[in-house]
Amino acid sequence: MKTVSTIDQIRKARARLRGSVGFVPTMGALHAGHESLIARALKENKHVVVSIFVNPTQFAPGEDLAKYPRTLKADLKRCQVAGASLVFTPTSEIMFAKGHDTWVEVEHLGKPLCGQFRPGHFRGVATVVCKLFNLIQPTRAYFGQKDAQQALILTRMAQDLNMPIEVITCPTLREADGLAMSSRNRYLSPGERERALIISRTLFEIQRRYEKGERDVSHLLSVMESSLGAEMDEVQYAEIRRLSDLGELESLNDEPALAAVAGFVGSTRLIDNVVLAPAKRPAKRKNPQA
Amino acid sequence: MKTVSTIDQIRKARARLRGSVGFVPTMGALHAGHESLIARALKENKHVVVSIFVNPTQFAPGEDLAKYPRTLKADLKRCQVAGASLVFTPTSEIMFAKGHDTWVEVEHLGKPLCGQFRPGHFRGVATVVCKLFNLIQPTRAYFGQKDAQQALILTRMAQDLNMPIEVITCPTLREADGLAMSSRNRYLSPGERERALIISRTLFEIQRRYEKGERDVSHLLSVMESSLGAEMDEVQYAEIRRLSDLGELESLNDEPALAAVAGFVGSTRLIDNVVLAPAKRPAKRKNPQA
Repeated sequence: MKTVSTIDQIRKARARLRGSVGFVPTMGALHAGHESLIARALKENKHVVVSIFVNPTQFAPGEDLAKYPRTLKADLKRCQVAGASLVFTPTSEIMFAKGHDTWVEVEHLGKPLCGQFRPGHFRGVATVVCKLFNLIQPTRAYFGQKDAQQALILTRMAQDLNMPIEVITCPTLREADGLAMSSRNRYLSPGERERALIISRTLFEIQRRYEKGERDVSHLLSVMESSLGAEMDEVQYAEIRRLSDLGELESLNDEPALAAVAGFVGSTRLIDNVVLAPAKRPAKRKNPQA
Repeated sequence: MKTVSTIDQIRKARARLRGSVGFVPTMGALHAGHESLIARALKENKHVVVSIFVNPTQFAPGEDLAKYPRTLKADLKRCQVAGASLVFTPTSEIMFAKGHDTWVEVEHLGKPLCGQFRPGHFRGVATVVCKLFNLIQPTRAYFGQKDAQQALILTRMAQDLNMPIEVITCPTLREADGLAMSSRNRYLSPGERERALIISRTLFEIQRRYEKGERDVSHLLSVMESSLGAEMDEVQYAEIRRLSDLGELESLNDEPALAAVAGFVGSTRLIDNVVLAPAKRPAKRKNPQA
């Protein structure tokens, strides 16, 4: 496994990789969720490139940029064990050189949910991932469903900008008790860690009710709000939106929907979501006699 | 020469071109200025790809999108004669499919000069050129100095987004009497065509005064304004700015500057510019005895 930090180095190292390339962009502080993305990328591509970059442009003022966990040595070890060929670890000065003036924005998809609470966040994400895509030129890129809005935005960006890259969204990995894996979980005290479970428990309850036939969005929302409010210190949003474009919904029908939550437990901001989609019917047998 | 219109077709046709590719994006209504870009691209690359697309997202409401000249048959002939290998002629529906939501913006460079008068113009330009760059994947792309701000913005975009593309700005081509070539010149009546000459005459006069040693920006600006005002129906701007970042200047020093004009003659909007840069000193001979 090779580790490089500059634009010239990553271009040269990338040019040496023949065959398909899977790319896993990260902010480091890697956990089993990231490892599952690398494993998937390795299964579907000849090589895997991982980037580790805490992107300052996706943190709003007052957010946790300064204290975001930096665990480079452990991260590189995990990348190596997981089978990455190449890791790109640029500095902010390399990614955002003096005079940088270009921004990529996915306009409507970036407005609701986290977009309301993190000004500039998705613009920062889209810009840095666009830059990384152009540097790495992957065949496929892998993101986690835990950051559902980010995955939708980056899928849209690659399509809208005609990038020859397949963006793949992979299932959320969870701890044994249901908590969605996140680099920010390490901020939680034991008591907060226990209270944080309300998020996944609430989302699973919504999914259970949906599967039992509940289709009334306002009813499901009131269940979410009262459940989350009992344990979280602040609920930023608890919403159910159309999965395809994050549009608002009054009732659930055949279109898949996203039930998504963000808020604080102590001073830690956590997000999670589940997809509400009709169960796939078994394919009709063409010839029932066969 | 091959002509294609869909995303699939251009991707396949591009994949068949081996070796370096020069790209000349246009809005059609081709003239000798465009031909000079194709000729330069042909000199520096194995293949030349031309796009012909009147990009609706770079026209503000009330501008000349509907009446912008469409001369596809003549354009294709010019491309063929000039030596293009491949011409891409998509429709708006192909370039901006339903649900398109991603925009590329070069923030500060897009604000002054034309940016003040054409809301959304450079955002539309940067977005469509980003898309075309990703589809064509050229080695080099060629733009005219006549659209100086556009050329600066696209050079910045390619650099900031780490696109592996060299953006090359080529000299403005002029009619024998000095008028900068433009697809919009055909809108001019004979009387307007005559009055439009004030633009290049004024800019050449500014250049002459600069070369004679004038360095006072406010003095040069007052010369520009009174000269242009005598013949143009509306002067949108007549400015002298630093060439590197379009920043404001009080006096001219060793840094190259741009003297730029935009405004109306009749109902036709025209732009033009000259670069004010110190004459290059002859290289010092290392050994005067040799």
